[in-house]
Parts: sequence; structure tokens; C-alpha cells
Amino acid sequence: MSHHSKFVLTDKQIPSVWLNVLPLLREPMDMPVHPATLKPLTPGDLAPIFPMSLIEQEFSPQKEIDIPGEVLDIYRLWRPTPLYRARRLEQALDTSAHIYYKYEGTSPAGSHKPNTAVAQAYYNKKAGIRRLTPETGAGQWGSALSLSCQLFGMDCTVYMVRCSYDQKPYRRMMMNTWGAEVFASPSEHTHCGRAIRERFPDSPGSLGIAISEAVEDAATHSDTNYSLGSVLNHVMLHQTVIGQECLAQMELAGEKPDVVIGCFGGGSNFGGLALPFIPAKFNGDPVRLVAVEPSACPTLTKGLYAYDYGDTAKLTPLMPMFTLGHDFVPPGIHAGGLRYHGASPLASHLLKHGWLEARAYPQLPCFEAALQFARTEGILPAPESSHAIRGAIDEALAAKAEGRSRVILFGLSGHGHFDLASYDAYLSGKLKDYEYPSEAIAESLASLPKVG
Amino acid sequence: MSHHSKFVLTDKQIPSVWLNVLPLLREPMDMPVHPATLKPLTPGDLAPIFPMSLIEQEFSPQKEIDIPGEVLDIYRLWRPTPLYRARRLEQALDTSAHIYYKYEGTSPAGSHKPNTAVAQAYYNKKAGIRRLTPETGAGQWGSALSLSCQLFGMDCTVYMVRCSYDQKPYRRMMMNTWGAEVFASPSEHTHCGRAIRERFPDSPGSLGIAISEAVEDAATHSDTNYSLGSVLNHVMLHQTVIGQECLAQMELAGEKPDVVIGCFGGGSNFGGLALPFIPAKFNGDPVRLVAVEPSACPTLTKGLYAYDYGDTAKLTPLMPMFTLGHDFVPPGIHAGGLRYHGASPLASHLLKHGWLEARAYPQLPCFEAALQFARTEGILPAPESSHAIRGAIDEALAAKAEGRSRVILFGLSGHGHFDLASYDAYLSGKLKDYEYPSEAIAESLASLPKVG
Repeated sequence: MSHHSKFVLTDKQIPSVWLNVLPLLREPMDMPVHPATLKPLTPGDLAPIFPMSLIEQEFSPQKEIDIPGEVLDIYRLWRPTPLYRARRLEQALDTSAHIYYKYEGTSPAGSHKPNTAVAQAYYNKKAGIRRLTPETGAGQWGSALSLSCQLFGMDCTVYMVRCSYDQKPYRRMMMNTWGAEVFASPSEHTHCGRAIRERFPDSPGSLGIAISEAVEDAATHSDTNYSLGSVLNHVMLHQTVIGQECLAQMELAGEKPDVVIGCFGGGSNFGGLALPFIPAKFNGDPVRLVAVEPSACPTLTKGLYAYDYGDTAKLTPLMPMFTLGHDFVPPGIHAGGLRYHGASPLASHLLKHGWLEARAYPQLPCFEAALQFARTEGILPAPESSHAIRGAIDEALAAKAEGRSRVILFGLSGHGHFDLASYDAYLSGKLKDYEYPSEAIAESLASLPKVG
Repeated sequence: MSHHSKFVLTDKQIPSVWLNVLPLLREPMDMPVHPATLKPLTPGDLAPIFPMSLIEQEFSPQKEIDIPGEVLDIYRLWRPTPLYRARRLEQALDTSAHIYYKYEGTSPAGSHKPNTAVAQAYYNKKAGIRRLTPETGAGQWGSALSLSCQLFGMDCTVYMVRCSYDQKPYRRMMMNTWGAEVFASPSEHTHCGRAIRERFPDSPGSLGIAISEAVEDAATHSDTNYSLGSVLNHVMLHQTVIGQECLAQMELAGEKPDVVIGCFGGGSNFGGLALPFIPAKFNGDPVRLVAVEPSACPTLTKGLYAYDYGDTAKLTPLMPMFTLGHDFVPPGIHAGGLRYHGASPLASHLLKHGWLEARAYPQLPCFEAALQFARTEGILPAPESSHAIRGAIDEALAAKAEGRSRVILFGLSGHGHFDLASYDAYLSGKLKDYEYPSEAIAESLASLPKVG
């Protein structure tokens, strides 16, 4: 065990491959199906909105996929990211547990999202695409893709969930600064946006709606592709640089984690951190992989494993996943990046078969954890990341109660510089907890399509 | 010359000493004098607001001062900071110059300020002080000291220039999150604050006023000390970790800078970067050290070298420095951290004797440079730092015009995550330039006290 508190890798130790667990899976994974024919999705079905290189990655049988040099050149701006041992937090908790965290907030956009945004921009550029259309909730994905498009000389049109657009003007300005155009969603810019505004003029928007708009924009312009920041296999794949670096850094620290914890929205942050631990786990390693989601949007803990659309307008393929139903609009919690009705099919598959654990927390205890972290470790966490901190603190407290040691690794997916209004609300006692809206979930789940 | 773009040091390479150039100076430096007696200031005169350990550093004859272990333990949270070669910016400029930048925005507070905040909190804590009172303009210093006080279990009361307080609510919230109390200055909390509010009810405040309030608060409470984020020798001293790391990193890069450029408000960022190059310069190294200030507050380029107060209420010692006069209230430019009427006496001394150069820019060309930087290198710069970027780009363009190569190193002192409203104003064409207000300067300079 090292006495250091920070574990830094050199540029040479940036992973040169992405890790693909698809060919390693112990149980066969259900396949996505076409929304009209209900037949298994073919690569060609995705061609209107994705370049073939990314579609191939979506279904790839290769265990490792080379990271292109031009992508690595950009990764080097902030990667490898640091891994810390949270000694001050441990001391404050008076726990014998060892708490490590991997910090992805050092990227220019402030989160892990550029790991896949850079790759997606690169492959689209290679395929001759001129413009990308992402959706964005909290603004992290839109920021990451605005930056990436700028670096590859492409245009970027962002559909930003309206309540975030209003609450987080700085995120919108950041995207503008990197040259992107940003619309509040539902917008007047697409057919499905206009349809929703007609029915619900005051709609605060949702990720499901924003995805519908972004997909429609891409599908109706031949020089334009859609770009998704989570959920899909190729997104999970690109994020595995996080966990690969952690493996090397935990070795530097001279320890092996007993539990790995990440916050979970669509699954890309959690997957990027946890998937590289899967090969060892398949070979008997007892490491626990814990996904933490908000109680207000409890996809993994209260949703069904079923076929569902990724968006509200039913434009996407039907994916086998844990879902709250594509009509589910979660309450306006401050962790905007965790407000998604579905979950990565890969993560859903692993959860269903017992390789992962899931846990849900209300937002108040998460902000309490974030504040304790900020006041001991210094870094101001994103509200999304605060869910992982809560999970890690509870693991440490449990270890203490049991009189045991425990090595805990959690993902600090981003900083909270654009979320200070949320901290202000918490500090002034204005923040509320939301019970998970069980009736809304039941109603939304009732609308699930019947497949097979 | 290395082909890398990022030069990372290990934890072992964090400097273990601060570099003190006072004993190396080639010309004798003028001494500060007591504001009432006009006699040379004694260490005892500073005792009501500073701990003796910092006062000793202010006048120290030692060339190197050990960094205490507890301070190093906190530096390790973000130090060593990265040095980059700006290859994408060079390409966009089509220049043969090599541009390097040292990025201090990776600290939790987002700038170089914690380098001295941590040290000052540490020495005050050791001296039995319970609370610190900083002033803050842009919010960088207040954030850094809020964080540092929290880490050492001290209270922190921040006097924040009112126009910044109103323009940058996120900075205030950040300080609250780290446990500090924040007052908009001029406030009702001090005698001099109330006096100014009586005369000027709509005063937007200034650093000079905020310093008066912070000093009064400290001087009237025995368990409380004042803490200054720039100007003084001990502040410049603590910041030398920046330039020391640069020396090691430029060696890794296999190059020697021809010119070192930093933005200049009170002088701590510039000094931290440039002072470690002074010993070589005293020994004949032709490296140029260039301070860049805003045209709207042209202390170094349009001010006088004279004795002046550090604050508006004339509570501080009289310091020999370049100054625009203690009554000077600069226009509300977006680089709030560069709106100070005076300049570090040490930097002033070096400038007067020709060891430094100074240059002033209006804010529009600085924002233009910041945007070009953000769109090539990814990182979103603070408006203060944008002055150094403008200086570096102009040096690169000059080299190109002369058909020469040139190695340029500049300091990127912080990120602009809390300054996006300024970028928004720039992008929407609402940002104006200010001519330096020559009449206001003449009037303010006329009020300088007569010394000696």
C-alpha cells in the first residue's frame, strides 16, 4: 500500500485501446429490434444517423479496439486523469476503509463525456459528416460534443432540455463559446418538438424529448448525424479508458478495490469505470460493482427489464433494458444528467444476471455527501457525481460499523461549477426530496410496447 | 526538443521550497513606510493583521524558504500543474513560434490563488488565529481562502467587491459551499464601509475599498487576521512554485523560453511565473519577462512609481510601487482580478530597473484571443488570463512577421467557468472597450501622499 494520496500516470500510460466486454459475456445478450418490423436490428438500420465505424463498434466481436491517433492526441489534453485517495474524507468519517476516487472533471468540458464525444466527432468527420446533433440534459454532453466538433472543424446543434436551458445559462454559453448552436427542447425547430409544444406549451422537456428532436434533425439532413452521450454499446466502449486507467492506478496504490461505485444515468460513466473490472469478475474476482441512481428516477431499482424506446417520439430502436417507460418524465432534480427513463442495455444485461448491484438515493443525502466531500477533499462535485460519493461514504460507514477494512473506489465524474445554484438551494434549506413517483411509473410502464 | 504536448511532473517534483529573490536584487529596494509616522515600516507595525511568520517572510534575507509539510500535503491535491505546448494554437496562427502555457486552473478554486491561500491559512492557524478576512474582486482570492480556511478548520469572512458580488453569484455560492461568510463591499459591516455607502450609496465597490473593510475587520478583532491575495512580498514568494515547476517542465520540453508572459493585477500570478527566471536573468540570460495589464487599469504603463496606500481608506502602509492613486476606481471590465490601482512593490522595483517589460491591452482583443484559445486548445480561460494569451499570440505573430522562431511561455492563471456571462456578452457584440481614463488617472495621481 502506497503512502501517497494521488496516483498519476504518464502520457505513455493513456490506454491505447478501448475494452469491449461484448465478446466476453457469460450469458447471451438480448438484441435491439427495429421499431416498425420488430425484427432484430441490422447495422443498416442505424446508417441514417450513425457512421458505419460506430455501428460496427456497437456490435463488435473484438475484445479490444484501437484508439485512433487523432483521438489520442486530444485525450492527451487532459488524460490520464488523476486517481486520489480521499485521506481527509476518511479522517472526517473516522473509518478504517480506504476510499479512492477517479476524477474526470479535469477535461475542458468538466466531465467524462469528452471521452466518447471526441471519438464520435472523429468517426463522423472521417465519414464525411458536416454537423452533429446531440441532445443534452445537464449540459455535460452538449458541452463535450460542442468542444469535440470545434476541434474537428464540424458544426454542432444541441437540443438542451428546456428546464436545464433555463436553470443553467452558463452551460449554454459554454457551448456557444465552443461554436455550437443551442436550442431549448422541446423547440420549434423539429416536427416532434412542435407537436409536444402544441400539447404541452409549458413542457420542461426531458431527455427522451430532446433525443427525439436530435434524431429527427439528423435523420432529415443527409450531411448530419445524431450523437448520443450514453446508453449505447459504443459509448460505453469509449468510456472504458476510465476504468483501464484505474486498474493501473490502483496497482500504483498497491491495493485492490472491494467495491467500485459510480453514479448511473444512462450508464456511460458507470460503465466506463466498472466494465474494465468485468473480465476479472467473470474469472472469480469478488469485486462488487455498484450503480447509484436517484430515487426520483429509479430506472434500475424500480424499473422493468423490457423492450422500450430510447426516446419519447418512438424514433429509436426498441432496446432491451431496464426502463421506467419512454413517457416517464422524472421530477426536476438537480442531477439533470441522471434523469433518463432507460438504461444502457449492456449494463441492464449485467444487472439482470447479477454481475452488478444497484442502489437509489434521494437528492438530500447526496448533497450532504457532496458538501462533506467539498469541505474535506476540496473539489466541488457535480450533483450527478454526488450519488457515487453518497454510495462510497455509506460503504465506508458500513465497514466501520462491521469493524472491517474495505477498499472503495468511486467515480467522481465531473465538477459542479455550473451547479452552484443547487448547492445554494441546499445550503439555504430550499432543496426538497422527491419520493419516487410510483403511480407515474406504473402508468408509464403500462405503455411499454409488446415485443416477442 | 520533445514531441510531446504536455509536460507532467511527479509528486516528488513539487518544489519543496519557495524562491525568495529579495536577497538577490541588484539594486536596493525602497522600503514601505508607516502611514502615520512616515518612518520605515517595522515588523511590529504589521503584527495587528499578520502572523509573525508571514511578516518574517515579507522581509526575509533567505534565498529559499522551506514549504511546510502540511502545506505540501494540500498542494498535492492539484500540484504539480501541467505545462502544455499549444500546438493547435500554433497551427491556427501558422507561426513557427513555439507557445507553451502553464495551467493553474486545475486547483479546486480554479486559479493560482490557493498557492498562497493555503500557506497563509496554515501560518495563521499556527499562530492561534481563528478567522481570516480576505477581500476579493473577481472572487478568485475569496474562493481560494474559503477553501484553505475550511481545510484548516478556520472561519473566513470575505469582503467581495459589490459589482462582482452582483455579477458573479456562483463565486459567492462557491465560497459559501466551502463554509465562508461573504459580504458585498462596501458593506454595513465596517466603519469605513458604512462611511463610503453614506457618501456613495450606489458604489460598485473596488478592491481598494474591500481591502479597507477587510483590514478594519481584522484590526478590530484579536482572534482575526487579514489576508491579502497579491502585491506583498510573501504572496509573490508563495507563488514561485509556479515558475519553479515551469523551469523543470521547459527542461522536459527541451527548450528555453525567449519570453515569459503573465497577466498582471497586483502581481502575484505574474511574479509566481516570472520570478524564478530572475536569477538567470541577473546572470545574463536574455529571457524577456512581460507583464500584461488591462488598458482600463494601466498601473504599470500609465501609473507613477511613488509611495501610495494599498487601500482606499488609507489603513495600509505606504508602499513604493507603480500606482494610479488609491482613489482610482477602474471601469467595470470583465477581468475583475486586474482592477487594482497599485502593483507589487517587488514587481514595481524590477520594472523600474528594466528587468521586466509591461504592456496594456483593451479587453476586446483579449476576449478575441481567449476565444481562439478555447477553440483550439479546449480550455476556457479566465478573462484575467486572456491578457497573457493576447500577449503570447502577439509575440508569436511578431516572430512570424520577422521570419524568426521564438519560444514563448505564458501563464494561464485560471479557468473562466464563472465568467461565461462575459463570453456571452463578447459573442453577442455587447462588450465594449474602455480607453484608459486619463483625466481620472491624473486626478487620482494628484492625491498621492508626499513621502520623503
